[in-house]
Amino acid sequence: MITFDVLARDGLARTGRLHTAHGTIDTPAFMPVGTAATVKAMTPEALAATGARILLGNTYHLMLRPGAERIAALGGLHKFMNWPHAILTDSGGFQVMSLAALRTITEEGVAFRSHLDGSRHLLTPERSVEIQRLLGADVTMAFDECTPYPAERHAVEASMALTLRWAERSRRAFVDRPGCGIFGIVQGGVHPDLRHRSAAGTIAIGFDGYAVGGLAIGEGQATTFAVLDATVPCLPADRPRYLMGVGKPADLVGAVMRGIDLFDCVLPTRSGRTAQAFTREGTLNLRNARHADDSAPLDRACRCPACTGFSRAYLHHLAKSGEILASILLTQHNLTYYADLMAALRQAIAAGTISELAAIWQSVSDRSSNQ
Amino acid sequence: MITFDVLARDGLARTGRLHTAHGTIDTPAFMPVGTAATVKAMTPEALAATGARILLGNTYHLMLRPGAERIAALGGLHKFMNWPHAILTDSGGFQVMSLAALRTITEEGVAFRSHLDGSRHLLTPERSVEIQRLLGADVTMAFDECTPYPAERHAVEASMALTLRWAERSRRAFVDRPGCGIFGIVQGGVHPDLRHRSAAGTIAIGFDGYAVGGLAIGEGQATTFAVLDATVPCLPADRPRYLMGVGKPADLVGAVMRGIDLFDCVLPTRSGRTAQAFTREGTLNLRNARHADDSAPLDRACRCPACTGFSRAYLHHLAKSGEILASILLTQHNLTYYADLMAALRQAIAAGTISELAAIWQSVSDRSSNQ
Repeated sequence: MITFDVLARDGLARTGRLHTAHGTIDTPAFMPVGTAATVKAMTPEALAATGARILLGNTYHLMLRPGAERIAALGGLHKFMNWPHAILTDSGGFQVMSLAALRTITEEGVAFRSHLDGSRHLLTPERSVEIQRLLGADVTMAFDECTPYPAERHAVEASMALTLRWAERSRRAFVDRPGCGIFGIVQGGVHPDLRHRSAAGTIAIGFDGYAVGGLAIGEGQATTFAVLDATVPCLPADRPRYLMGVGKPADLVGAVMRGIDLFDCVLPTRSGRTAQAFTREGTLNLRNARHADDSAPLDRACRCPACTGFSRAYLHHLAKSGEILASILLTQHNLTYYADLMAALRQAIAAGTISELAAIWQSVSDRSSNQ
Repeated sequence: MITFDVLARDGLARTGRLHTAHGTIDTPAFMPVGTAATVKAMTPEALAATGARILLGNTYHLMLRPGAERIAALGGLHKFMNWPHAILTDSGGFQVMSLAALRTITEEGVAFRSHLDGSRHLLTPERSVEIQRLLGADVTMAFDECTPYPAERHAVEASMALTLRWAERSRRAFVDRPGCGIFGIVQGGVHPDLRHRSAAGTIAIGFDGYAVGGLAIGEGQATTFAVLDATVPCLPADRPRYLMGVGKPADLVGAVMRGIDLFDCVLPTRSGRTAQAFTREGTLNLRNARHADDSAPLDRACRCPACTGFSRAYLHHLAKSGEILASILLTQHNLTYYADLMAALRQAIAAGTISELAAIWQSVSDRSSNQ
């Protein structure tokens, strides 16, 4: 069982506290992605210094390497990666779907071949939940089919129905532990009536929190927001809401204004490794030659080590030279930027000024191009 | 001018303090290599946490990218890379020699093409010293020709004589600054009489410290030590002695016992990026499958984050997965190991027990294979 308190509201946006076996998370919160038992280029200390208090682990990657039973024998994922704070694990559903030619979906689950060595595996709702238990997840995700986009309505409907049947099996397989919970996932593509049926069916099963899945996979921000407008009001007000795989800063702001509490996305970490930095002046490409002689910090208002210790010229030099330190510093900066955005949103909600903050962030977003 | 105090002696080994514009270095000391204005995979904070108080910067790499004048305009190398402690820069001589087909040596200097873009450059003693001044080096190295090994005696002799003429030009070009100095480099291959002549000529010019160059390039440890036995006693007792490009832990121990004070080598950093770890049990290859389930720390006696926070199983997983964190943790471990080795040598010299310590390290070295 996992508990959640809503603290303040501003329109549909709300602040809250998610209480887990590994600490309390102030929401809205962004969860950095730690695919292979590490948030790429970050030590646990550096990650915690960004403000992160929950990260996402990937069932698919960890079941293949190093293996869920191995991590369990070594004391669980928290101990394995030396992360004392909370962990949410995905179900593996999204990754196995994306294997395309390497997988087969049946009522039982998904049979697939490993992208690492071609070995055969079967992931079912029961096995996914078992793996997440072996990892020691604070938040387990139900095993779902992430419906592709675009897709015919009948395919979206069938997929949504399968996800509901898998949700029931996932819920049944989940073993309750103190401070741990399981979230269900609402699917249904871009069709409001299917989202409504999915939400109702998922709520009827009963979960500790509810995720909105199958978005940010090509449908565009306006459609994402429209689906949230249709879906979030169907979800229980006293339970956390998680928008999976989203997104850019402006996506997060818009989703928070529509009542979302939790996010995950590889964008800040992946961007950090390709020399893209999110700043209060917009997104910067540190490889651009115009930074070569710039003694200014990356972002004057940022508290992170990249901004307080170095110039844009230095970060440019590291990026051009392919130095690991470029990935370290820019990842830490981007995660700090995301954490500070979430903190600013929480403050604005508490102060009742979320609309003003959203307008400012929208203007930053408008200025952003690959500078 | 740079000052050096000898504090204690045990046989030929001695402890000392090198006083620079950026702090005091306890010797014997190991200098991590920061080729491209970063010690690869290390933040400055992580590097300082290993115990390092001086690092080596590479004139060749920095003159090509980002350029010495650019670094000077940005406030010098210390500010550029946010390293508040001391920096020794090499002269570029070793790197341009290794360009082989891309360079031409004349009395004037070395004409070469950049390995980055093929652009043409000329490195002379005067330009090398000027670049090191632009970088803001605490310790400048004279421009030398690193004699290849093996080489005919007449070639070694001619090379040594050229290095002496370049040493005189380097010394003349050096502009004295408080807390900064210039070191001469003794060459002469594996020939004791040439080493004697090189040492006498270099000392006659007069430097703040003396390096032994042209070793650890294939001649083997016994020959390295024999050259040190022939060379070090020729050097002034009150000046720091630097063995360039060395080496493995057992090489350092043996060289300290022969009176060397300073070292640099890419081995601990490069090894860290290829999953090789120096430990009190010998060298370990973390990619080896035998570590996959090992919950023990890398080195029980080590104080570094890799050893206090993680298991060998985790480090193995990171290495197998190609994760940046493997490079971060293993580099920090190896540099901590080297720093702690130097600290142990200093303590043993002060206590008069260097021979006992050397015997212990020799036994570790004997046990080391790629486990």
